[in-house]
Amino acid sequence: MLEKIDLSRKLDKSEYKRIAPPLRDRLGCLQRSARAAEMPVIIIFEGWEASGKGTLINELILPLDPRGFRVHYVHSSADDNQDAYWPLMRRFWLMTPPRGRIGIFNRSWYRLVMDSPKSLAVCDDISSFERQLFEDGYIIVKFFLHIGKKEQKKRLRKLDSDSSSTWRVSEKEWRDNEKYDDTVKLMDEIIQSTDKPYAPWTLVESHDRRYAAVKILSTVAKCLEKGLEVRGFNKPSASPPQPVIEENVGDSGYGADSFSLEPSLLKNVDLSKRTEAEEYEERLPELQERLRALQYELYRARRPMVIAFEGKDAAGKGGCIKRLTQRLDPRGYQVSPTAAPNDWERAHHYLWRFWEAFPKAGHIGIYDRSWYGRVLVERVEGFASESEWRRAYDEINEMEGQWFRYGAIIVKFWLQIDDAEQLARFEERGKTPEKNWKITDEDWRNREKWPRYEEAAEEMMLRTSTTFAPWTIVEANDKPYARCKVLKKAIEAAEDGLGKR
Amino acid sequence: MLEKIDLSRKLDKSEYKRIAPPLRDRLGCLQRSARAAEMPVIIIFEGWEASGKGTLINELILPLDPRGFRVHYVHSSADDNQDAYWPLMRRFWLMTPPRGRIGIFNRSWYRLVMDSPKSLAVCDDISSFERQLFEDGYIIVKFFLHIGKKEQKKRLRKLDSDSSSTWRVSEKEWRDNEKYDDTVKLMDEIIQSTDKPYAPWTLVESHDRRYAAVKILSTVAKCLEKGLEVRGFNKPSASPPQPVIEENVGDSGYGADSFSLEPSLLKNVDLSKRTEAEEYEERLPELQERLRALQYELYRARRPMVIAFEGKDAAGKGGCIKRLTQRLDPRGYQVSPTAAPNDWERAHHYLWRFWEAFPKAGHIGIYDRSWYGRVLVERVEGFASESEWRRAYDEINEMEGQWFRYGAIIVKFWLQIDDAEQLARFEERGKTPEKNWKITDEDWRNREKWPRYEEAAEEMMLRTSTTFAPWTIVEANDKPYARCKVLKKAIEAAEDGLGKR
Repeated sequence: MLEKIDLSRKLDKSEYKRIAPPLRDRLGCLQRSARAAEMPVIIIFEGWEASGKGTLINELILPLDPRGFRVHYVHSSADDNQDAYWPLMRRFWLMTPPRGRIGIFNRSWYRLVMDSPKSLAVCDDISSFERQLFEDGYIIVKFFLHIGKKEQKKRLRKLDSDSSSTWRVSEKEWRDNEKYDDTVKLMDEIIQSTDKPYAPWTLVESHDRRYAAVKILSTVAKCLEKGLEVRGFNKPSASPPQPVIEENVGDSGYGADSFSLEPSLLKNVDLSKRTEAEEYEERLPELQERLRALQYELYRARRPMVIAFEGKDAAGKGGCIKRLTQRLDPRGYQVSPTAAPNDWERAHHYLWRFWEAFPKAGHIGIYDRSWYGRVLVERVEGFASESEWRRAYDEINEMEGQWFRYGAIIVKFWLQIDDAEQLARFEERGKTPEKNWKITDEDWRNREKWPRYEEAAEEMMLRTSTTFAPWTIVEANDKPYARCKVLKKAIEAAEDGLGKR
Repeated sequence: MLEKIDLSRKLDKSEYKRIAPPLRDRLGCLQRSARAAEMPVIIIFEGWEASGKGTLINELILPLDPRGFRVHYVHSSADDNQDAYWPLMRRFWLMTPPRGRIGIFNRSWYRLVMDSPKSLAVCDDISSFERQLFEDGYIIVKFFLHIGKKEQKKRLRKLDSDSSSTWRVSEKEWRDNEKYDDTVKLMDEIIQSTDKPYAPWTLVESHDRRYAAVKILSTVAKCLEKGLEVRGFNKPSASPPQPVIEENVGDSGYGADSFSLEPSLLKNVDLSKRTEAEEYEERLPELQERLRALQYELYRARRPMVIAFEGKDAAGKGGCIKRLTQRLDPRGYQVSPTAAPNDWERAHHYLWRFWEAFPKAGHIGIYDRSWYGRVLVERVEGFASESEWRRAYDEINEMEGQWFRYGAIIVKFWLQIDDAEQLARFEERGKTPEKNWKITDEDWRNREKWPRYEEAAEEMMLRTSTTFAPWTIVEANDKPYARCKVLKKAIEAAEDGLGKR
């Protein structure tokens, strides 16, 4: 998902000057409280070369009492031949801060996997390390500073042209920049497999230093507050009033003159994409025919396929599913609509009914809404507690991972429409007698929660887009375009899975 | 550790008649409370063929309201070709009981690994399944019914000779009995890798049906009570007075006319083993010489070796370590005594100092007491909370697993002496001026906690004896014998690790 993150986030100088100083004061207070509470804190900075780790660490430590933190620069293990002498995690164990102190890491144990793609298995050791510390009371904050390939190139050029920094840019850095597109996939995989409830990643869009700094300061502050709260410490009384930024974080934050600290995958989606009627009429049957052929191949290969649809009300899920299945052999697929669980379903684990509905070998299971309800509607409506929906990301990734290893091909669609389009569709439903049943008062009420649904959807895609079960965002303002894209992606996934591409 | 479990446990008829009926009443009450609390419960029975699963399940369900439980017999996946159609864990998900009900499993998802040694990787999927259910509120009780090879053979013969049961004994069962010794190692490995705080295994010594029945009833009752307590339900008021068995479980239970439900590794240890002076004087230098040679080989191979000593006061740890190191090259080993942690150590994770003390590649680290303090002294003295020492088994196994995968050779000794021998040594220390410093009032106080230490030691060995870091019990009443055994085992482990055996 890194590739799809909106990197245009910016904070202008005056906003920054308004927001940053009270945030810094707050952090200073929080550090003192953490010390009093004997709460140990680990903050790590990973990210691309030239993404600003050093600068941003300086921003972070500015308000901190230097007696209470320590910055570690983590060398590559090759540099000092460490790993020839000791078990991998030993040097990181030795760097763990004592209770009440903050350890700040410029690079970290993730070097073990980020620097050398072959050792992905080490992720398990890393997770065990972080879990053991968490259970011992450590707060773990992990930042990944993200910049694009072009931005990195620009920064490397600038560093190279300055005589005081040219030493930082060697052959290796240029080579890494060229391999950016391969590396980004590895980073995605590492972040996904180590993004745990006890040590979640925070992506920092780092094109704009001010934006990144505020996001970092604010995230650290929130994590410290949460940790103190769990320990029964209240917010430090000496704390200044909450800076205004908090208000923006809570609601959508996508308005023109506010800004959000949540990463955005949806903001840059180009909803103007269209497929004209003529093209649609020609392409649709072709795509449908191709999928039908693939359905038989899946059957012969005994490979199950799972296709999940999520998206806001009136985004066109039903219409897409209709076109997807129109020419399929009905013996080989099943559409499962997911509504609120009934009593019997509620008496089981929330994933129980989706294990039940899993398609048999060689069959296709299509889901009109899905197990993602846990982190969407149940989160937004408060049907699931925060700890429940938070651990659901992991639980769902585990479930999909087991399906994948069994041989399933998994495709997940998020149908995105904008506010105006939804309104138009709602109104049309209200006016058209045969569509009237599709619109209820609840739909109108849900519309008001749009910003919170969108926030939930963004986090869902960030945390559950895996190499084995990626999300596809479908620009759905134009129905023909959306339907063709869904068919095309399903075909591609089936071909990929069958090794035909 | 299965091989070392004392299988002679028995309960005579009159004891059984005294204990079982109130236990059954209690279980009946608890089932009703679990129903009211909507607490779902999973109880699985694994174990050797002919270990009495069916009979013992019948004992368990006797007091239960049949509307509230369901017994599942789990077929092997080969039988019905299940796994050709669905992801492995699906059929088990579908068998999970709804809230308030009890699912009892005659065989279970462990068939996936216990029936086919090649699929050990499935243990991860199983643990994920159990963890997800636990976090959703499920109580998971897992029994492994254990009988010896001879006992199994006897039972198979009996089944075979009876015309009504002869169908149960085919070629396969006889073959399995012959392969018992290989299988027991696999079982050990599976049990160890799936013994989690959220779903721990209970070993049931099943030679004696009455003993096994009482252990099962009592374990289920305790687990239900704990689950209800966590939910804020008190013990059911209609519950009869606690049966007398509880008293025995708490204390040592090794007296002649009481009995314990805890599995015992130590009870059958033959403490009369001796090495005569003449033999000792001849063997000791040979063994020491051999270890010295191996020390150089370890050094050249860059393999670190970890040797941990645990055991009660005056068990002879120091004397063993002295003989172990007497002829070693001092540049290549280090003895670390482990005392109560100092302030700086206490400010870190409890494993921090042991990561620190890990021997460099090619070196030997010897520990006079160790990281096992967490589950021994800290448990018994209440320095660690129950949840802390319970999760320590897993944490320690993870740490030793990482050391092992790095290349470490790990040996752990438990030095066992009996009560009389300890008393004699204490008294001698008191009387001998040059040993006087070794004995304090605290030692005498600790002596009184002996039964609880022994209980903690037994559980420690059961839960942390892994294929990669096994415990060795050393019969230490006779010092020469103990010293020779320690040297011999250390030599064997080094030779094994270096691939010389």
